[in-house]
Amino acid sequence: MGDNLAQKILKSHLVSGRVSSGEEIGIKIDQTLTQDATGTMAYLQFEAINTPRVKTELSVSYIDHNTLQTGFENADDHAFLQSCAARFGLYFSRPGNGICHQVHLERFGVPGKTLLGSDSHTPTAGGLGMLAMGAGGLDVAVAMGGGAFYLKDPKVVKIGLYGERPDWVSAKDIILEVLRRLSVKGGVGKVFEYSGPGVLSLTVPERATITNMGAELGATSSLFPSDEQTRLFLKAQAREKDWIPLAADEDAEYDEEITLDLSTLEPLAAQPHMPDNVAPISTLADIKVHQVAIGSCTNSSYLDLMTAAAILKGKTVSADVSLVIAPGSRQVLTMLANNGALTDLLDAGARILESACGPCIGMGQSPASGAVSLRTFNRNFEGRSGTADAGIYLVSPEVAAASAVTGYITDPRTLGKAPQIEVPLSFRIDDSLIIAPGNPETQIVRGPNIKPLPVTSKLEDHYRLPVVIKLGDNITTDDIMPAGAKVLPFRSNVPILSEFVFSKIDPQFPARAKAAGKGIIIAGHNYGQGSSREHAALVPMYLGIRAVLAKSFARIHKDNLVNFGILPLSFVQEEDYDKIDVDTNLSIIDLLEAVIHNKPLVLHIDGTQTKIPVQHNLTERQAKIVLAGGLLNYTRES
Amino acid sequence: MGDNLAQKILKSHLVSGRVSSGEEIGIKIDQTLTQDATGTMAYLQFEAINTPRVKTELSVSYIDHNTLQTGFENADDHAFLQSCAARFGLYFSRPGNGICHQVHLERFGVPGKTLLGSDSHTPTAGGLGMLAMGAGGLDVAVAMGGGAFYLKDPKVVKIGLYGERPDWVSAKDIILEVLRRLSVKGGVGKVFEYSGPGVLSLTVPERATITNMGAELGATSSLFPSDEQTRLFLKAQAREKDWIPLAADEDAEYDEEITLDLSTLEPLAAQPHMPDNVAPISTLADIKVHQVAIGSCTNSSYLDLMTAAAILKGKTVSADVSLVIAPGSRQVLTMLANNGALTDLLDAGARILESACGPCIGMGQSPASGAVSLRTFNRNFEGRSGTADAGIYLVSPEVAAASAVTGYITDPRTLGKAPQIEVPLSFRIDDSLIIAPGNPETQIVRGPNIKPLPVTSKLEDHYRLPVVIKLGDNITTDDIMPAGAKVLPFRSNVPILSEFVFSKIDPQFPARAKAAGKGIIIAGHNYGQGSSREHAALVPMYLGIRAVLAKSFARIHKDNLVNFGILPLSFVQEEDYDKIDVDTNLSIIDLLEAVIHNKPLVLHIDGTQTKIPVQHNLTERQAKIVLAGGLLNYTRES
Repeated sequence: MGDNLAQKILKSHLVSGRVSSGEEIGIKIDQTLTQDATGTMAYLQFEAINTPRVKTELSVSYIDHNTLQTGFENADDHAFLQSCAARFGLYFSRPGNGICHQVHLERFGVPGKTLLGSDSHTPTAGGLGMLAMGAGGLDVAVAMGGGAFYLKDPKVVKIGLYGERPDWVSAKDIILEVLRRLSVKGGVGKVFEYSGPGVLSLTVPERATITNMGAELGATSSLFPSDEQTRLFLKAQAREKDWIPLAADEDAEYDEEITLDLSTLEPLAAQPHMPDNVAPISTLADIKVHQVAIGSCTNSSYLDLMTAAAILKGKTVSADVSLVIAPGSRQVLTMLANNGALTDLLDAGARILESACGPCIGMGQSPASGAVSLRTFNRNFEGRSGTADAGIYLVSPEVAAASAVTGYITDPRTLGKAPQIEVPLSFRIDDSLIIAPGNPETQIVRGPNIKPLPVTSKLEDHYRLPVVIKLGDNITTDDIMPAGAKVLPFRSNVPILSEFVFSKIDPQFPARAKAAGKGIIIAGHNYGQGSSREHAALVPMYLGIRAVLAKSFARIHKDNLVNFGILPLSFVQEEDYDKIDVDTNLSIIDLLEAVIHNKPLVLHIDGTQTKIPVQHNLTERQAKIVLAGGLLNYTRES
Repeated sequence: MGDNLAQKILKSHLVSGRVSSGEEIGIKIDQTLTQDATGTMAYLQFEAINTPRVKTELSVSYIDHNTLQTGFENADDHAFLQSCAARFGLYFSRPGNGICHQVHLERFGVPGKTLLGSDSHTPTAGGLGMLAMGAGGLDVAVAMGGGAFYLKDPKVVKIGLYGERPDWVSAKDIILEVLRRLSVKGGVGKVFEYSGPGVLSLTVPERATITNMGAELGATSSLFPSDEQTRLFLKAQAREKDWIPLAADEDAEYDEEITLDLSTLEPLAAQPHMPDNVAPISTLADIKVHQVAIGSCTNSSYLDLMTAAAILKGKTVSADVSLVIAPGSRQVLTMLANNGALTDLLDAGARILESACGPCIGMGQSPASGAVSLRTFNRNFEGRSGTADAGIYLVSPEVAAASAVTGYITDPRTLGKAPQIEVPLSFRIDDSLIIAPGNPETQIVRGPNIKPLPVTSKLEDHYRLPVVIKLGDNITTDDIMPAGAKVLPFRSNVPILSEFVFSKIDPQFPARAKAAGKGIIIAGHNYGQGSSREHAALVPMYLGIRAVLAKSFARIHKDNLVNFGILPLSFVQEEDYDKIDVDTNLSIIDLLEAVIHNKPLVLHIDGTQTKIPVQHNLTERQAKIVLAGGLLNYTRES
């Protein structure tokens, strides 16, 4: 029995465990990437690990999130990151050079390698045939230090693409169709491997759109083979030497198989407020549109923007539509400027933003109240745009451009012949905004927005923890640690950031937790769903949280809690949830023994006879991490 | 005796008073402009005046300030402004079309006409030979309604330009030299009229740089003749029909004359933190630079950016300099894209921002802590960049580009031959982002950020006013009503805006004033200096302020107080300032009689025998306005 592609890459990087075991495995990481919103913390953590230079084959620090600079904080962070990159041996991609995933695809990704990134859309590079995964910044810091990355051995799902894609049906529609079928939870613990004859017709940028938005399935990663398309793309990027052919064995087996007949697809949209709330554009045709945004790591490639430009050429955007375009990279922007497509876009009335994440992360261009915004992005969660009552539809560049002109959601098939844009034989190469690793003696620049890394102590044997908040089901990491234009600038400043924890649910929480000194959080099911941001664990740790007791946890957040020395506990009997109130105290005794040997554990409600049996279900490695007071302490000790 | 140019335009527009009298005159306004930060209030005021359509020859509503859109507020305001423009008969320049002054110069300005704008840099259009002045939004609203604009008849100062300008000396250096000589107070009550043989060599965009930054002299306006250069510029904008020749009479007389020998000039910079703190670049050559910003209504023309591109072509910005460029208009940006200069800028490493005011008003691109930023802008007040401890140097595009490459303040004369950029024979015309006046039945769009216009009541005859704050000398309108990226989005939302009044000086002020219900402000000399923003009077009015008692007032702010029905009083005996404490009550009786007949007025300090003699020095027209409860009430009544 042969191996599928995921198995091949996992096996060639295996450090511990067994591939296809379903158990925890450890793998070697070849490349890492960070962006600035997660990177500041990652480099503070790398510094704390005390390794002089990164031990990966390649690590890149990108600036693409905090580029508006509405206060000194962003520029302070940029200077810090640039000095860290020089000192620790990373490449540094300057602001304006583009979105990390787009630039990594263009200039750095290599088929068959592993990539760990502190951004949930890191799987974009799967379009090049590399195994690319998102993780918390601390995991990336450990990987930069040469440590393995641990994950539950994923199930591998084959998505077979067959049939011929109709005109006006884009890569975006393929992944929207997968989301429609599988839902935003359908990918948890899985790697999606695309194969079949339909793969051949997809260029690397199109594949990257699909692997990018695989993140919305909750997937560990998504993968395409490395084939002739891959070779042509790398050659056009003057990197043919990085190419190797890579595919699943003929007789590879998969945990699941899904078949997609491309010929049956039509243009689709994810409706508000979830990426899997997918409907055909043809059923949405009378909806008035107020804003159209083209860009993001999902759809900002040369191909995407040339397609939009071809549709917009000679037309003018509707007088009541604001069309904003943020090219994915400086390479893309410059090529559009040189071939006249940028002029076509400007003539049509597009507002051109800097090459960065921008509106996709709520960093500017928030729509008007109650507005409908069509975006080529990957997430349309309620309020993420910065406007609480806006309705965001996720669409292809084709649908976006067509709708910008009419002012209504528009099926591009009504426009006649589809533009045929080819991947260029050679992209315009200019890496002058990528600074090579510098002198290890470089002084790290620490402006006042760079606060010291918070740390916590080893787990103690006995605790008396006040219940500082009691929450319901499905609490997201956005609920725990909000993001957006007003909060993101403080990602390197945990004292200020801590003032925003649970601010949408309970503005008094930070003060109460601080006053208590230490505490435990009570929650319902699926605690910590959504984005993978480690700040949702790190900042509560800073506020003294030592344990979270929930009915169940979202996987990545549970890992993050462990990484920051917060004990994730779950109820043995769910009904015990109702016995606990805010401001009661829970006592735990003989904790160390229970954690080390995975023994039953009991919490006592102070002043009562009530005992609450709980469990932790940590692997031995995770138990050791929590005992050490988090991964950072653990890594420094080992 | 002949007339100078200012006298000619004033005389041809005179409605009341006498030109060259030194007294108040009223003039007819031909054109108005607003930008979005002041425009929302201006159109609420125009609506309150209850005139169905503007009565000017041309009025334009621009969007150029609040373009980041970090919340729903900006887009709400844009929709409001667009609907107002349609309904009230204005042209509407959409976001992305460019900075109001640059676009007005390109597409609308006409020699010999009067222009009133709710932006202090409205005098930019003086570069075309029009008399252009900044004012509060309410003055602009009244002018749109056909009302006269009242100002103290200005002194006219001739600035004679002689000699040949050396290479690398730009228009920016001419105005910096004027600022060095006359100071930021040197222009108060004056119009500067440029003449002499040196004028001939200055193109319209260069002239506009000079008239623009005349605002920093405190001048009423600045003017150039309309000559062959003007004709060529208008012809290149396909507007030759708008041209008329216009110059001072041969025997014109001036209140003052200043002579500038251009051949003696060298590249200059205004050092932190004042535009008149001017020094030769040659003396600043070792200062490390962290940011370079090219753009703003001062220096973002085609000529400016082509010059920067020519210097940067083939070079790369220093690795520790962030170079940001915001083209002045879509016309400029598109022309740069088409002729390859944009590629030169991108290749050099420039970050291209949307065509808007951007960093000049602290709207993004705040420098890092303690950073040095070289900017081609017009103001370098402490903290205006959004970074309290940054040092801003105001320079020409030549100095900016040269310094971006070296990373140090660099004299461009070290670069060899200066680039020779010609004004194009035809600019690229595309007005598709300028929406023509619409249907008078258009429904005004009022999102939740558009709050009703606050109004106040007529002046009463007796008051007992608590002293709600006591201030020192030189309080700026920035102290009274802060701006910047965090506050500007609320310019149409006075209830929220009111929470920021005096927030840097006394965060408790808004709550205290609200609790008091009404009040009086006590201040030292030069109260209300700085920007002309009417919100510094309007929002205190909303908080119940009925009078300000100061040692002296800045002129425009005093006008704004009058416009919003706040009585500006000054001490007869300055030493009485010391007798008044916060929280004491001041009683006034027989106020109406005293205001109408300009009689002596006495304030009683409650609970004491102390009497404070005060005066108001209002013109009869101003007295009537205050009595009516402000200009809006006055205009509606008359």
